[in-house]
Amino acid sequence: MGETMGYLRKNIERLAAYTPGEQPPPNSSVIKINTNENPYPPSPQVLRVLRETDWTVLRRYPDPYADKVRDAVGRLFGVTRDEVLCGNGSDELLAMVVRAVVDPGEAIAYPTPTYSLYPVLAAVQGARVIEVPSPEDFSIPVDALVESGAKLLFLCNPNAPTGVWLEPEAVAGAARRFRGVVVVDEAYADFAPASAIAAVRGLPNVLVLRTLSKSYSLAGMRLGYAVGPPDLIAGLAKVKDSYNVDAVAIEAAAAALEDQTYARANVEKVRSERARLAGALAAMGFEVIPSQTNFLLARVPCGQAQRWYERVKAAGILIRYWNQPRLSDKLRITVGSPEDNSRLLRVLEATLKEMTA
Amino acid sequence: MGETMGYLRKNIERLAAYTPGEQPPPNSSVIKINTNENPYPPSPQVLRVLRETDWTVLRRYPDPYADKVRDAVGRLFGVTRDEVLCGNGSDELLAMVVRAVVDPGEAIAYPTPTYSLYPVLAAVQGARVIEVPSPEDFSIPVDALVESGAKLLFLCNPNAPTGVWLEPEAVAGAARRFRGVVVVDEAYADFAPASAIAAVRGLPNVLVLRTLSKSYSLAGMRLGYAVGPPDLIAGLAKVKDSYNVDAVAIEAAAAALEDQTYARANVEKVRSERARLAGALAAMGFEVIPSQTNFLLARVPCGQAQRWYERVKAAGILIRYWNQPRLSDKLRITVGSPEDNSRLLRVLEATLKEMTA
Repeated sequence: MGETMGYLRKNIERLAAYTPGEQPPPNSSVIKINTNENPYPPSPQVLRVLRETDWTVLRRYPDPYADKVRDAVGRLFGVTRDEVLCGNGSDELLAMVVRAVVDPGEAIAYPTPTYSLYPVLAAVQGARVIEVPSPEDFSIPVDALVESGAKLLFLCNPNAPTGVWLEPEAVAGAARRFRGVVVVDEAYADFAPASAIAAVRGLPNVLVLRTLSKSYSLAGMRLGYAVGPPDLIAGLAKVKDSYNVDAVAIEAAAAALEDQTYARANVEKVRSERARLAGALAAMGFEVIPSQTNFLLARVPCGQAQRWYERVKAAGILIRYWNQPRLSDKLRITVGSPEDNSRLLRVLEATLKEMTA
Repeated sequence: MGETMGYLRKNIERLAAYTPGEQPPPNSSVIKINTNENPYPPSPQVLRVLRETDWTVLRRYPDPYADKVRDAVGRLFGVTRDEVLCGNGSDELLAMVVRAVVDPGEAIAYPTPTYSLYPVLAAVQGARVIEVPSPEDFSIPVDALVESGAKLLFLCNPNAPTGVWLEPEAVAGAARRFRGVVVVDEAYADFAPASAIAAVRGLPNVLVLRTLSKSYSLAGMRLGYAVGPPDLIAGLAKVKDSYNVDAVAIEAAAAALEDQTYARANVEKVRSERARLAGALAAMGFEVIPSQTNFLLARVPCGQAQRWYERVKAAGILIRYWNQPRLSDKLRITVGSPEDNSRLLRVLEATLKEMTA
């Protein structure tokens, strides 16, 4: 408050910005399993491109449409270049969709709980939100969302922070019935059984958003992309910054997408650890929501989730805790490397003993 | 039109997107002096950082506030970290200011001609524009802009595409009299005698935007920053994507900013070539607007500017031409390397002979 009074828009003055997860210094020994990062490094092909490219090209502007990445995405999903738009992370694409689709005062619908960025984007645009609570089991309340009358529907699938997944045919069915634009935010979809891209192809109102942050270990590089009908993609392109993806990100992302063998092997390792971690947590008395992502949301055995979180943090492990309705009795744990997961389990076992002593 | 009818906002349907300058393929032999890129490569320190950093860190999210860059900017201009915000190019910061400051229906003022992105950003936000024509000599119509009653004033300084520059004290004077927020877009200021940063420091309503695209030869890397009062910077931060600057850009930009010796030497070379090119053009009969940037806007000697542009393009040199009021009799030429400038001058001399034959 104070000096900016009158300089900023009122909805921006009121806005509490999105809070990213804690970031310990890069050289710290803390185990960081709080922001759903991949425990494995990016593909060796990405590291080679970074090391060996002649980066004197950086004096020039990058390709405004990152065609090299669009073509790699096209090969991966059997779509054409004009069905793909790249963004500076899928967060940028989420913001672009809101700007392109929702007039101030119009409504954006999403289930709760979900990705906490959505209401922030709505507030920046001056849009209304229609929040539809998920039932007890955190399944997606599809019918109520479809009938919400909103201009835009955000479906994070699999959902964060719950891990719950809707099958592609259910997504396509919802999109056919919804009168506005549906964004299927597939940030975690590589850890799930399938993407909705094939099922929704041809629908005029669906954009599927993907990111290289999770399954390709490139959170630090910022590369997301939208797949959708050419007309919607062209509309989205109108609100993007001219050169929104830098030349290094274009080369790194193309190399990562071409190395499917490496990415798939890491995804398999994470899935396998997800199963082990979920089993061990359940054995300790945690109530674990079945997850199709690279994280688990789990209710702690005997209450006091915040104390659990703090105990784990004191032991040098960062996980995520939200003091919010329906989440305040739970912890969200990113699936880490086998060693990190084992260390976490030991700390949790010690905590359980302490809390039940 | 067609399928998206009804899905996109009406102001987005109507919008003609900003048109970036032509980009020939990277390995083409075309001389590219059409988008004000620097003819010299980035600092060797930048290339070293790209080659030698252990980029396995890319599996992690980057620093959301790019503090390493903020601190380098702080040292350069004697400001504190909370007076600086980094963006994915200064284009992203321009868009963020509009989103943070201007409600739909409110007005944005700027002189004409100026950077053609400003009206696009206004249209995306649903803002009105107040365009104040510059007088014959393209000087900035400061009084009319100050009295426009707009919520936001864009001052590109030095201005593009004219090269005209306002002294820091004149900028500060205008900002003191203006009731809204002033953005001083200093994309080209390193080629001018001085920045306005020191002169406007302490004013509550001024943001100075800078970029590493021009003077630091990093157009391909996308790194801009805003310098301003902490309250305004904090407001701006609320509308930014959580991780808007990637980890590679942070390291590259910090290295570039630390190597002032290299950047200043390149700026001096460009200034010196600017003088030579302007002199040679004037000798041929071009009317050259005095420029404080890395480009020249010049009226062709005997009309038919578009034919001049096409003749130059046919000779393998890309420059910029706009078929627009007040610009359609002129060419905009980025100052290239001495060799490129000499080749351009030879082509122009041949064209002049041909046109006056």
